[in-house]
Amino acid sequence: MKFLHTGDWHIGKKIKEFGLEEEQQAAFESIRQIAQENQVDAIVIAGDLYDSSRPTETAVSMLNQMLIQLNIKDEFPLIAINGNHDSAVRLGTGSQWYQATNFYLNTELKKAFEPVEFEDTEFFLVPYFKIQAARTIFGKDYQDIASAMKDVVAACEANFTPNKKHVFVGHFFAAGSTRTDSDTATEVGGLGAVPIDLFENFDYVALGHLHSKDALSAQMVKYSGSPLKFSASEANNQKGVWIVDTDTMRVDFVDIKPIHDLKRIKGSLDELTSTEYKVKNDLDNKTFVAVTLTDKEPQVDAFSRLSATYPRMFSLKMEAIEKDFGGKNVVIDSPDKVAPTEMMDIFFNEVIKQPLEEDNRKLLLETLKEAEEE
Amino acid sequence: MKFLHTGDWHIGKKIKEFGLEEEQQAAFESIRQIAQENQVDAIVIAGDLYDSSRPTETAVSMLNQMLIQLNIKDEFPLIAINGNHDSAVRLGTGSQWYQATNFYLNTELKKAFEPVEFEDTEFFLVPYFKIQAARTIFGKDYQDIASAMKDVVAACEANFTPNKKHVFVGHFFAAGSTRTDSDTATEVGGLGAVPIDLFENFDYVALGHLHSKDALSAQMVKYSGSPLKFSASEANNQKGVWIVDTDTMRVDFVDIKPIHDLKRIKGSLDELTSTEYKVKNDLDNKTFVAVTLTDKEPQVDAFSRLSATYPRMFSLKMEAIEKDFGGKNVVIDSPDKVAPTEMMDIFFNEVIKQPLEEDNRKLLLETLKEAEEE
Repeated sequence: MKFLHTGDWHIGKKIKEFGLEEEQQAAFESIRQIAQENQVDAIVIAGDLYDSSRPTETAVSMLNQMLIQLNIKDEFPLIAINGNHDSAVRLGTGSQWYQATNFYLNTELKKAFEPVEFEDTEFFLVPYFKIQAARTIFGKDYQDIASAMKDVVAACEANFTPNKKHVFVGHFFAAGSTRTDSDTATEVGGLGAVPIDLFENFDYVALGHLHSKDALSAQMVKYSGSPLKFSASEANNQKGVWIVDTDTMRVDFVDIKPIHDLKRIKGSLDELTSTEYKVKNDLDNKTFVAVTLTDKEPQVDAFSRLSATYPRMFSLKMEAIEKDFGGKNVVIDSPDKVAPTEMMDIFFNEVIKQPLEEDNRKLLLETLKEAEEE
Repeated sequence: MKFLHTGDWHIGKKIKEFGLEEEQQAAFESIRQIAQENQVDAIVIAGDLYDSSRPTETAVSMLNQMLIQLNIKDEFPLIAINGNHDSAVRLGTGSQWYQATNFYLNTELKKAFEPVEFEDTEFFLVPYFKIQAARTIFGKDYQDIASAMKDVVAACEANFTPNKKHVFVGHFFAAGSTRTDSDTATEVGGLGAVPIDLFENFDYVALGHLHSKDALSAQMVKYSGSPLKFSASEANNQKGVWIVDTDTMRVDFVDIKPIHDLKRIKGSLDELTSTEYKVKNDLDNKTFVAVTLTDKEPQVDAFSRLSATYPRMFSLKMEAIEKDFGGKNVVIDSPDKVAPTEMMDIFFNEVIKQPLEEDNRKLLLETLKEAEEE
């Protein structure tokens, strides 16, 4: 069989104040098209369907329509679990009825060990779970998620039908095969890391949680990544879905091009606000932009000029501050006892490492006065 | 065919701070039992399944289990609409899948005009709707819900199959046949009143919204009422469900006995806190109690003594205050400029109509001082 592996849709997410309805709808249409073009037999969604455990009505309505489209209208079998962003109870509403149309949505750990079977393949649907759920099921006092996952995996393996392919669908932080892997931490998003060697008896592990498809280097343990870039750290990510063929165990990545990209840009204020720069770098008014300014001096009109140039700027940093600041805080013992003007001086002397110039001081004082009057 | 008519479950509701999980679960079991004993062919739930448009996970989990029990396990066909307390979008999640097991949940006005058919009967599922929804569908600028409802009814009637029975399921405020009916207001819960003569072509109108089964005196237009008493004004309501037989058009009410009753009690503090009174009036520690004290003098320890006697007291009033006060407010122009002691005097002079006695004044001042120190 052939299936499409996606996840981390985060329906309802905003980037700063900017809603993503249009972008998420377009990414969904791309997934649909990829599924049709590749004639997949099922679509796997590995958790974090919603961005929030209490999604808005708009988000609920949007995800409902997407699932109706894929499962009822297009008649794709669906395989899904909740992620840490979803409420298992809210997302799970209706799931007992969904199975009649081959929509398998599991939000309960205790139901993970009976596989869902499609042709030659058994899918084990392991939702995001808290360690307490595993303690209740297995009666052991696990101290970390990796030990709990070991028993979850064993419980799945106990139900393997030989000569079938076995796919594990999960939502957690998987680390390299050893805990000393240089680019992994032991905690991400509050989930302990799970070493990927645990899953060696599975033919494929379809993961959600990390937003980069390249988070793991293993051949058969994959994060799908999110279908859209959601933060500056994902600006250079390649987004899309995996197409997995269980006959050949070939795994292909198919790109999703966003209708509005998310980019990091860096330069001086004059450079970045020039029309040439925008055109040359293929930036339009709907591009989500994270700006790093290279000007040495603070530019008082930086925010307004950049916002006018990039209406969807969601982050603004100064390289000079990042460098000198070195990520450390200047600690002021009792900030409520420091006058705003004094605070300004501390900021310029300690952080910018240059005293506040008289012109700028005057401007800041005026602004402060206006703010107080308001 | 025979169907059971219920509504206004308000899952997730609290009476003051007291959760009703146990009581709502027990009332649900009664409904289930009545449905089984009467061998009904369908169960109609006329809106307000939830108490809130953003129900808690506990409430979602509870209602999900109830619907799974009735429809999937007991195999009762279900007919349901949203009420004004429900979110149409949230409650409607999954409804496209529910129909496969004869669970018809409609939360969209535009889908109300195609009946759901059971044996000899056509059910028209008209959800609670805002006037704007009717304007969009019918292209008229309705000024009140009654005019909109007239067109909704006509749209249903246009789809009547002759020689079938026709049942209207709705959730709104229905008034007597004229707007001057003495015991009806033109607005309840923000819904305009709809005269019941509109529905004369229907064989039965299964309503939700008002919590009393006796809210209307019509034979074939009925509120089911809520399965539990939710407020002091419902203390003397008879609670239960209607069993409707479409062959004979016989309508019977079947009682639901609450596991913990809700009662109004009235008497002096000494009387109400006596063991004899509790025993004689069949009041236990789980009874929800609304108290009216008949003592002429304010009793400073009334709240603590009554709470100790009735742990689920949810309302405490003094008859003397109610009488003298006559429901009108004593208006103080600038309450923030009146000292607490002065406020006390105004209250006793204007509301209690007796000056504050010296002993009580001393006690109040001490309490005030303690509160300020904290």
